[in-house]
Amino acid sequence: MLHGKVLVAQGGGPTAVINQSMAGVVLEARKFRNVDLVYGAYHGVRGIINEDFLDLTQETTHNLEMVAGTPSSALGSTRDKPDLKYCQEIFKVLQAHGIAYFFYIGGNDSSDTVRIVSEEARRAGYPLRCIHIPKTIDNDLVGNDHTPGFPSAARFVAQGFMGANLDNAALTGVYLAVVMGRHAGFLTAASALGKKFPDDGPHLIYVPERTFVLDKFLADVKATQDKYGRCVIAVSEGIHDDKGQPIITQLAKEVEHDAHGNVQLSGTGALGDLLAEEIKTKLGIKRVRADTFGYLQRSFVGCVSDVDQREAREVGEKAVQYAMWGQQDGSVAIERTGFYSVEYKLQPLEAVAGKTRVMEDEFINAEGNGVTDAFRMYLRPLLGSGMPDAFRLRTNHVPKVLSK
Amino acid sequence: MLHGKVLVAQGGGPTAVINQSMAGVVLEARKFRNVDLVYGAYHGVRGIINEDFLDLTQETTHNLEMVAGTPSSALGSTRDKPDLKYCQEIFKVLQAHGIAYFFYIGGNDSSDTVRIVSEEARRAGYPLRCIHIPKTIDNDLVGNDHTPGFPSAARFVAQGFMGANLDNAALTGVYLAVVMGRHAGFLTAASALGKKFPDDGPHLIYVPERTFVLDKFLADVKATQDKYGRCVIAVSEGIHDDKGQPIITQLAKEVEHDAHGNVQLSGTGALGDLLAEEIKTKLGIKRVRADTFGYLQRSFVGCVSDVDQREAREVGEKAVQYAMWGQQDGSVAIERTGFYSVEYKLQPLEAVAGKTRVMEDEFINAEGNGVTDAFRMYLRPLLGSGMPDAFRLRTNHVPKVLSK
Repeated sequence: MLHGKVLVAQGGGPTAVINQSMAGVVLEARKFRNVDLVYGAYHGVRGIINEDFLDLTQETTHNLEMVAGTPSSALGSTRDKPDLKYCQEIFKVLQAHGIAYFFYIGGNDSSDTVRIVSEEARRAGYPLRCIHIPKTIDNDLVGNDHTPGFPSAARFVAQGFMGANLDNAALTGVYLAVVMGRHAGFLTAASALGKKFPDDGPHLIYVPERTFVLDKFLADVKATQDKYGRCVIAVSEGIHDDKGQPIITQLAKEVEHDAHGNVQLSGTGALGDLLAEEIKTKLGIKRVRADTFGYLQRSFVGCVSDVDQREAREVGEKAVQYAMWGQQDGSVAIERTGFYSVEYKLQPLEAVAGKTRVMEDEFINAEGNGVTDAFRMYLRPLLGSGMPDAFRLRTNHVPKVLSK
Repeated sequence: MLHGKVLVAQGGGPTAVINQSMAGVVLEARKFRNVDLVYGAYHGVRGIINEDFLDLTQETTHNLEMVAGTPSSALGSTRDKPDLKYCQEIFKVLQAHGIAYFFYIGGNDSSDTVRIVSEEARRAGYPLRCIHIPKTIDNDLVGNDHTPGFPSAARFVAQGFMGANLDNAALTGVYLAVVMGRHAGFLTAASALGKKFPDDGPHLIYVPERTFVLDKFLADVKATQDKYGRCVIAVSEGIHDDKGQPIITQLAKEVEHDAHGNVQLSGTGALGDLLAEEIKTKLGIKRVRADTFGYLQRSFVGCVSDVDQREAREVGEKAVQYAMWGQQDGSVAIERTGFYSVEYKLQPLEAVAGKTRVMEDEFINAEGNGVTDAFRMYLRPLLGSGMPDAFRLRTNHVPKVLSK
């Protein structure tokens, strides 16, 4: 076992349970005698090169538990993607502070950061144990049954659509909401779990795993409207045409890119508004409403899956155990072992880094505008206990007196 | 006491607790011997002229309780605003079905409908007791301390901003969210209840009670950004310039109006996107994100104030009691009698109908970009029990080693 300090950091988009993983690392690491101190880097890898560290050894267990139950990244986050030079800066700092264990909680991009740091450490002959801890509401990390953060965001989306469906049933018309998801449609598909009765919405679900064809979309909406007199639609922000071009880039004048070269899809209502406009003008439906779930779905306080909380805590704990008792760097992964139970394993960083999992074919219906029962079975246990339920008045029509 | 049937209907935008009021009416009315049957009109006044009634006498108490806990209008709703001819149609149907008691759960527009129906009934010499039951997330009914539906929506907005603030603290930049509210800023102001630490957002709150001046807004954002390195903003959809022109109409090409002549403000992300664009281009801040809370804030399942639930139930119950034991038509209102307790009273319909309450001056700060402690004191007890809380890691910086 290496002797030295532990450093934990959080990268990428926050989730409702990312602090559970942080607390898992800190509380578990503080048990080991070969650990001098436990540091947290403020704002991810950027905090490391800036030597912006908090000493978490002196944080109280009580407050760590309170923070664990608070959404978003308590240590702050970053979108920086370290290159070789950036990593050399990281080493300088890690060496200067005697860091022996580096835990980075994040998604695709963060796992790639851990991979680069791990490789550079090995190349430099610097003894450093690097563990990536999975986190992403997109559920797009390969080798994982699912990723911490996704279940809580999925629960928000399901509860959001449950309510939106009830609202739409009351005032009718078309309701469309845009859900986060650049390449993977898991979170958008979660909208299906808000459905109870056969005629409940969402009636149509569009994910980035299938080509989005505007004419087909409009035909689907029209058919639903004709059948139910209303239509509730879930659309992933990452839907694209047959050339892979995001639908949103076909309208945004100036498209913003982040440091990873990704187009900005969130934080704008443009996609929803465009699709609503298409429905209004081409189908002649008057009441069309578009929402964009935006940042609510990943940071709303008070909508969390207890299953997600527990697992997010455990991947943090297990990361420390793998680091201490294992012989290699890697990425912690969740494996499903029952209905419902999980185990954890350590994957090689190369198996995860920079790769994107998308929805399996068996989760998407043949028409490409909905999900299958297999997906519902997959997601339901992740949403946790206490899921709200929607009830209806039973039909008991009074005979008409006046009209013939 | 009149002998006959009871009819209950729901109008306007749904809320999280509107079914509590419906259940309150039905369960209370079923106790009275002079009531033959209890009907519900499907889709408000439109359901009446279409003779689209459900017999709620045969609904089980259990299912009524389950529906009471379900958001949105279980009987469906409508935006129809009856004129004289429409009301004559209503009478024909009410007479034909032997309706003696008419309860309409709704906001401003619905109370005006009740007023017209009540007047027309009197004019026609038809014995009909008409009671308006308050409901609106906008909290804009005069003569009420607050309106059922508002506390739950306010809780959603507060929890939403609590999370958005945490998210913004992690990745920084500017975050702006548009909240419902055409003339009254109560719901937007509720965002302030998501704030815990002094540097927490929302840092700026703009309500329709004050003129929105773009340059002042940009100066406020810049000052906040300079002070905290980030900025969280709540904006009411109804903000307008000094001529009373909604900011949103200055950009929307084709503005939709509803049957009441109101401009469509909800169900589009346009206002948020415009303001974000202004901040990006005029202040040169790169990461600017805009959300529109949209329909989530009024129908999200699983975010409800227990105080709101109880009161919504009680206004339904009280409405029936006023109808049975009172001598006049009217609108039930909530009066605050302690910290925190309420009483109910019956207002004349003319006192409520078509009038709009806006935020009292003492609730808005002098600068017109935030709320006062008086508002926080006013709102806090309405949010109910079990409000989530946000925690932070305590500052405990590690001394830098490398940088001088």
